[in-house]
Amino acid sequence: MSESTNLKSFPEIVNIYEHHSGLVNWDKNPTDLYAPVGYIMHQEGKKLRPAALLMIFNLWKEDLSVALNAAYGLELFHNFTLVHDDIMDDSTIRRGKETVYRKFGVNQAILSGDAMLIESCRLVSKSQEKMGVTGVLDLFLKTAMDVCEGQSLDMSFEQLEEVGLGEYLNMIRLKTSVLLGCAFQMGAKLANQREEVSEKLYELGTTLGIGFQIHDDWLDFYGDLQLTGKVKGGDILKKKKSALILAALEATEEDQKKVLLDAYHEDHPDKLETIEFRFSQLGIKEKVNEMYLAYKKKCFDMIENLPLNEAQKSRLIEFVILVLERRN
Amino acid sequence: MSESTNLKSFPEIVNIYEHHSGLVNWDKNPTDLYAPVGYIMHQEGKKLRPAALLMIFNLWKEDLSVALNAAYGLELFHNFTLVHDDIMDDSTIRRGKETVYRKFGVNQAILSGDAMLIESCRLVSKSQEKMGVTGVLDLFLKTAMDVCEGQSLDMSFEQLEEVGLGEYLNMIRLKTSVLLGCAFQMGAKLANQREEVSEKLYELGTTLGIGFQIHDDWLDFYGDLQLTGKVKGGDILKKKKSALILAALEATEEDQKKVLLDAYHEDHPDKLETIEFRFSQLGIKEKVNEMYLAYKKKCFDMIENLPLNEAQKSRLIEFVILVLERRN
Repeated sequence: MSESTNLKSFPEIVNIYEHHSGLVNWDKNPTDLYAPVGYIMHQEGKKLRPAALLMIFNLWKEDLSVALNAAYGLELFHNFTLVHDDIMDDSTIRRGKETVYRKFGVNQAILSGDAMLIESCRLVSKSQEKMGVTGVLDLFLKTAMDVCEGQSLDMSFEQLEEVGLGEYLNMIRLKTSVLLGCAFQMGAKLANQREEVSEKLYELGTTLGIGFQIHDDWLDFYGDLQLTGKVKGGDILKKKKSALILAALEATEEDQKKVLLDAYHEDHPDKLETIEFRFSQLGIKEKVNEMYLAYKKKCFDMIENLPLNEAQKSRLIEFVILVLERRN
Repeated sequence: MSESTNLKSFPEIVNIYEHHSGLVNWDKNPTDLYAPVGYIMHQEGKKLRPAALLMIFNLWKEDLSVALNAAYGLELFHNFTLVHDDIMDDSTIRRGKETVYRKFGVNQAILSGDAMLIESCRLVSKSQEKMGVTGVLDLFLKTAMDVCEGQSLDMSFEQLEEVGLGEYLNMIRLKTSVLLGCAFQMGAKLANQREEVSEKLYELGTTLGIGFQIHDDWLDFYGDLQLTGKVKGGDILKKKKSALILAALEATEEDQKKVLLDAYHEDHPDKLETIEFRFSQLGIKEKVNEMYLAYKKKCFDMIENLPLNEAQKSRLIEFVILVLERRN
């Protein structure tokens, strides 16, 4: 089923990626075009997607060097979406720094984002060619389109009063989760694994991505502030749709929904207390936590059913725990 | 050297492309994302790039169907650049209609442009795979990056008082001409022609593209208004850099440059007359026309030296004449 290989530890994998990433040169002409790319690509970030791709690839292959272009391409694509989304969402701060469009202007942010997207395709295609496999770029482009569709749904949801929890989950699946699924499947496809395995890994990565996002929504209000380093209830203060408010609306009688929505959209100093009280009446903390746990369990079940050896399965379990049990 | 094939007439080729293009469906969900794509892709346009690709491909292959995806991808890419450039340049009208960002808003224009770029890569990759050749997508992505660099230079030139004619020509080469070169080379690569031929065709297409752009600048001021349907001296009224003013600056003594630049940047009712007088003193009409004729001659020389039969060469000559002798 699978070759026996020395599985690298996660920190080792991240180190290999960071080393490669540090060598990529964005200090070139025209500076106007490439400086914004260097600015965002040299920021600290979780590097979850490239690390996931390399971790999966490493389940079968020891030499990660041929997959580094694809891994970097994936991170470049992810950062391209941040550059353009920050314009659309009017976000001023990201990772504690000015967003690209605030620092370099909207025009440069649009154009540099375009260049990042183009380069990400080139890098993915390069790794695919080097490994002599097919379908990696197709998967990447299909996913990229899904991400655009997700962002489009997200923007249209912001115009609506109420969105169903199911619609919201579909939106975050497209906007953020499929990219992790894509990272998993790309790792498997580059390692020349058969379609059945790579597709199951796509489902695993996507499920993990949704679990991650639900947990993220939960941490925003119920997380340990000392660990998250964020403002409590940032989503609620910004009146953003999240799993919490949508679950609360689903648990509320039709004639009471307007009262809850009004409380969510007001700018009252006691707003967070009001919302917390309403959420506690509806058991939202527990409900959303259960949703998250259900996705976690689904991940473990999926891993169990993969045609992999125990060492490979352990590696996947570790990764799921790393992603889902973070507190910040 | 080359297989004998029935060469289709240019109108036949355009018809085949238009038929294919008419079948592409953008009327799908999410509407917010795809409606702007349908809006611009269904507009009348010269379709120069896809027609060029198919015309070159047809020099060796009779069945154009396998190249249609790449041809459409090229047109999609070209339109993506228009959608994003119109935001950056604050252009309100294109092809006699509202630009995408004016009609659908900046956010939708950014996101729909991204989707067009992604889909263009997918289509080019699809044709490449179908023909079982390599290097087509690489060429396309390399060109796409050149186009971004060209747009970046164009934006930075707008901030400068004076730009050398050579720098300007390099900018238009990157921003617009290489895409025609790419269309030529893609046609040859898809038809599985060897590198030497395809590279020469890239040079021919790029040279033709530069000639086209110089002619475009010339027509803006010296063209027959009844044929161009444009306002005389639109570039001059908008104080845009063009081959005319840059050639005029190059022909002007250092101490007289400021006088010319001031006249170019003022908003006086007699501005066009003043500029026309200065240009005539410097012989700009003839000088820029000679530049254009030099590029035309270069195209014919290049065709002469291509390893093609007479029928193929005639086809290329016809195309060059079609592109360069237009009066509108």
